[in-house]
This record gives sequence, structure tokens and C-alpha cells, in this order.
Amino acid sequence: MSDIYQDVEDLSAALKVTGRVLEECLDDLIPDPDGPERRVIEAMRYAATGGKALRAFLALQSGRLFGVDHDGMARVASAVECVHAYSLIHDDLPAMDDDPMRRGRPSTHVQFDEATAILAGDAFQSLAFEVMADDDTHADPYIRCELVTGLARAIGPLGMVGGQMMDLEGESSDLDIGAITRLHRLKTGALISFACQSGAIMGRASREARHALDAFAHDLGLAFQVVDDLLDVSGDPAILGKTVGKDAASGKATFVSIMGEERARDQAKLLAEQARGHLDIFDQKAKFLREVCGYVIERQR
Amino acid sequence: MSDIYQDVEDLSAALKVTGRVLEECLDDLIPDPDGPERRVIEAMRYAATGGKALRAFLALQSGRLFGVDHDGMARVASAVECVHAYSLIHDDLPAMDDDPMRRGRPSTHVQFDEATAILAGDAFQSLAFEVMADDDTHADPYIRCELVTGLARAIGPLGMVGGQMMDLEGESSDLDIGAITRLHRLKTGALISFACQSGAIMGRASREARHALDAFAHDLGLAFQVVDDLLDVSGDPAILGKTVGKDAASGKATFVSIMGEERARDQAKLLAEQARGHLDIFDQKAKFLREVCGYVIERQR
Repeated sequence: MSDIYQDVEDLSAALKVTGRVLEECLDDLIPDPDGPERRVIEAMRYAATGGKALRAFLALQSGRLFGVDHDGMARVASAVECVHAYSLIHDDLPAMDDDPMRRGRPSTHVQFDEATAILAGDAFQSLAFEVMADDDTHADPYIRCELVTGLARAIGPLGMVGGQMMDLEGESSDLDIGAITRLHRLKTGALISFACQSGAIMGRASREARHALDAFAHDLGLAFQVVDDLLDVSGDPAILGKTVGKDAASGKATFVSIMGEERARDQAKLLAEQARGHLDIFDQKAKFLREVCGYVIERQR
Repeated sequence: MSDIYQDVEDLSAALKVTGRVLEECLDDLIPDPDGPERRVIEAMRYAATGGKALRAFLALQSGRLFGVDHDGMARVASAVECVHAYSLIHDDLPAMDDDPMRRGRPSTHVQFDEATAILAGDAFQSLAFEVMADDDTHADPYIRCELVTGLARAIGPLGMVGGQMMDLEGESSDLDIGAITRLHRLKTGALISFACQSGAIMGRASREARHALDAFAHDLGLAFQVVDDLLDVSGDPAILGKTVGKDAASGKATFVSIMGEERARDQAKLLAEQARGHLDIFDQKAKFLREVCGYVIERQR
């Protein structure tokens, strides 16, 4: 299939295209609400939309580098966003970060209820694995297994879930830069890395290309998180679509609380530049991945 | 590898062997608690033990029918129990069934805390898929993908999660026998069916064998659930290891509330007999599967 980003002029348009692709694909993948269990499906549909689709974007762009078929790659990108949606739903729960707002709307447990939100998150996780293992995603079952394994490792106790555990444990303790960096590598970095690797898996990329994408994802993910911490201090809740000032209120150690705003901003810029540098081995097809490095540090939401 | 059940005399001994196999395998599969994220791993280890291991038993016995390698089958059985553990942890949460006791001990959210319990359940789910997709489970990636897909469908919004949603929605409503039957086919039946199918998938069983196992699992699962409802009315909480009388207290429609105790007991027996009948196409290797039909209706826990 043709490259859907071929005639797209700039990053902003590319992100819009990604949003549309994601919306259509998720609409196909999430079952239709029907029967007495429809409430959990309605909650999934509610939570699936309205995000930045950054992880889907990274997956789709990574696939483009290696000429991966668009339809399969859209399914992988959607599965990654299913996992992201699950993590947001569960993280927002009262027992976790207790966030009533997300993406400018009530969080899923506020819009529905806690039980439904827990179940919707659970269902998103299994849906992601179902999509990865399905032969519509890739004809080669080795590749599908590699996707399942890669995703599972990225989000398990030594990945995303471990990072969220560290985050909860760390709220009252004094973390240093090393500990915070590790926390975010697990909590948000591991899934971002998997998104960036997913195109390489689908396209049987060389070891060199995989290493470059890994280094790119590592620096981009950290830059993203430093900016997240900055936005929690100085962001506009109306644009951000979620509560701000939560980290300071809970006495949580963040990049900003340790480094101060100015140094944190410099650090984010440095990381974004480093991230861009890792893409030097790729050709013009990495254009939007290069541009996203700037987007990540300039973003207001 | 040799058949570990070969010299086992009766069902009770076979269940004990299963428990040991499961314990060893899960000890290998769950990471060691280490680092600041160890709390979630400790919670997983806590929740992984002390159950009846019925689903693992069904998986291992199903594998035996088709001469499946024991080590791979033990991994599949453990993955099924990981999913079962995740579902119990989440179902026991205050926002769900609010059960403080499980397997004779405090539920995971009581022993640890709600956030850790949510994360431990989440991590169990991804661990299950990681195990299924790993090449240590089966050399053929088609088979591994079939395991992932089958498990994902069994536990998603049109499976286990959908059943739990129906259960929560139905607490205040009047369900009839048809609706309750469907609820339990999703909530507990789908995972039990998958456990019974898993050996057939691993052993590339014939369509006929798969149909027989499916019918067996369907009747056994329902018998199991009718007995669950009976135990909630007349079981001994000390043996059962969990609270009793919850269904009546919450005004929940159950097989017992609709049919009465006596008819429910007859129905369970009938279903167990039917389940046994579906095994007629198998040889002596189905011995313990036949015996488990009796166990399920006589069990006290």
C-alpha cells in the first residue's frame, strides 16, 4: 500500500493524519457495544479518543523507514495506543494518581465508575495482544510473536508497571536524578521505545537501525518526560486537558524539583537534539521523526 | 519428557502434583523482587499461590491427551493461572466485589494496598502473554500465536471481562437462567474453556477432539459455577477461604436464588455427568479429566 505520509507537508499535518488513521483503526478493533456487557465497551471507546497519538505516530513513522505495509502497521500502532489508554485509565484511578481530568474531559472512572474503568483498562490490554498476534497484522508468525514479546516486556513489572510502582513508592521519598531517570525509562520510556521498535520488527530492520531507534527513543522519551514535569509546573490546564501542580502538591520529586525550571528546559533541549542525532543513519523518510524532536519540547499539551 | 502423571494413583494426588508443578514454574516465571519496583513483584508472588490450580490442572491434562511436551505445557498452564490470579486480584478490589479474604488469607489489596493490587493484576496479564509468545513454550510460532489469540479472546470484553461487567451490572437487576448462564460462560467459562483447549492447540489436535473438549469445558465450567453459588449459601468460610453469603446479601441473582438449593444441586450433577460424557472419544489418558467432574461437584472449596 502507498505511503500515506507521502504528500503530507509538515509535522502538524502528519500528526492529524495519524489521528485519523488511529481513530478508524480503533473503531474497527474495539467491538461494538452490545448486550449487557456493553458498558465496558462504551468506556473503552470513550477512553480511546482525544489523545495526542504520539505513540501511534512513532510506530507508523518507524514502519515507514522500512517500507512496512500500512494496514499492518496501523494495527500495531493502534495496539500500542490501546496499551497507553489502559495505562492512563488505571493511573487516573483514585487508588493511583487520583486524576479526575484527562484529555480535557472527565477521566474514565469519573465518566463511568471505578469498576468499569478497571475493566476497560484490563480489556484494552488483552485487545492489544490479540491484535499483535492476529495474522492480519503480519503474515509471519515469528514477527507477530516478536511483537507480543516486545510489548509484554515493555509493559510488565520490569517495564511500565514497574515504573508506575516506583512512582507511587517514590511520592514521599527523595529520589535523585538517576532514580528519576530510571523510573521514567520504565514508566513511559519502555512503551515509547517499543513503539519506535515496532516498525523495525515489522520490517525486519538491521541491528544497526534497531540500535539507532532505541537510542532515539531513549532520549526522546526522557525529553518528553522532562517537558511533562515542566508542564505540570507552568502549563495551562485548559490546553493541557488535565490538572496541573499535582507533583508539587504531593511533594513528588521531579526533574524540575531537582534541577529547577531553567536547567530542566535546557536538559530537555539537549536530549531532543541528541535524539535527532541518532536518526542520522536514516534518509529523508525520517523527516517527521526528526521534526517530532522539536515538537516534544515545544508542546503545550 | 515423560508423563509426570503416569504413576499418580488418584485425582487428589494428581491435583497435588499439579500444585507443585505450578508453584515451581511460576517461581521461575515471575521476576525476583528487586529494586524500587519490588513491591509489585512481591504482591504477584503473594497472589500466585494457595489456589486450587484447577485451570492449570485442566491445561496439563488436556496436553497429556495429545502427548504434548511437559515443560511447554507447564508454561501454558502457569500463564493461564497468571490470568486467573489477575482476575481474582481485580475482582476482589473495593470498587469491584470488595472481598477482603481470598484463599484463606487477606486479599492482595488488603495485604498490600489497592494501587499495588491493581498493578500486580496488570502485570500478571502481560506476563501471561509474554509466556505464551516465548519460544520456550513451543517451537512453532503459529502455535504460540494461536495461544495468544485464544487467551486474549477468552479474557477480553467478549469474554471474562465482559462477564465481570455483566455481573456488576446485574447485581441489582433480575436476571433469568439464560442471562446467568451467559454471564458465567463469559466470566469463568471462557478461561476454563481456553485451559481445556490449550493442550489441543499445543498438540495440534483434530477438530473432533477440540469440539469434544469444548463441550466438556462448557458443561464443567457451568457445573463449577453452580457449585460456587451453592457454596456461597452453605459453604464453610474456614474451608472455603473466602467470605460466604455475599450473593444473598447483595441481592444478586444466582443459580441458587432462582432454582433453589435442591434443584441447583441436581443441575450441577447433571452438568458434571454431561461433561464426563463428552470425554468418551478419549482413551485412558482422560482418566483424571473424568474424575475431575466428580471433584467439581463434591468440592468444599
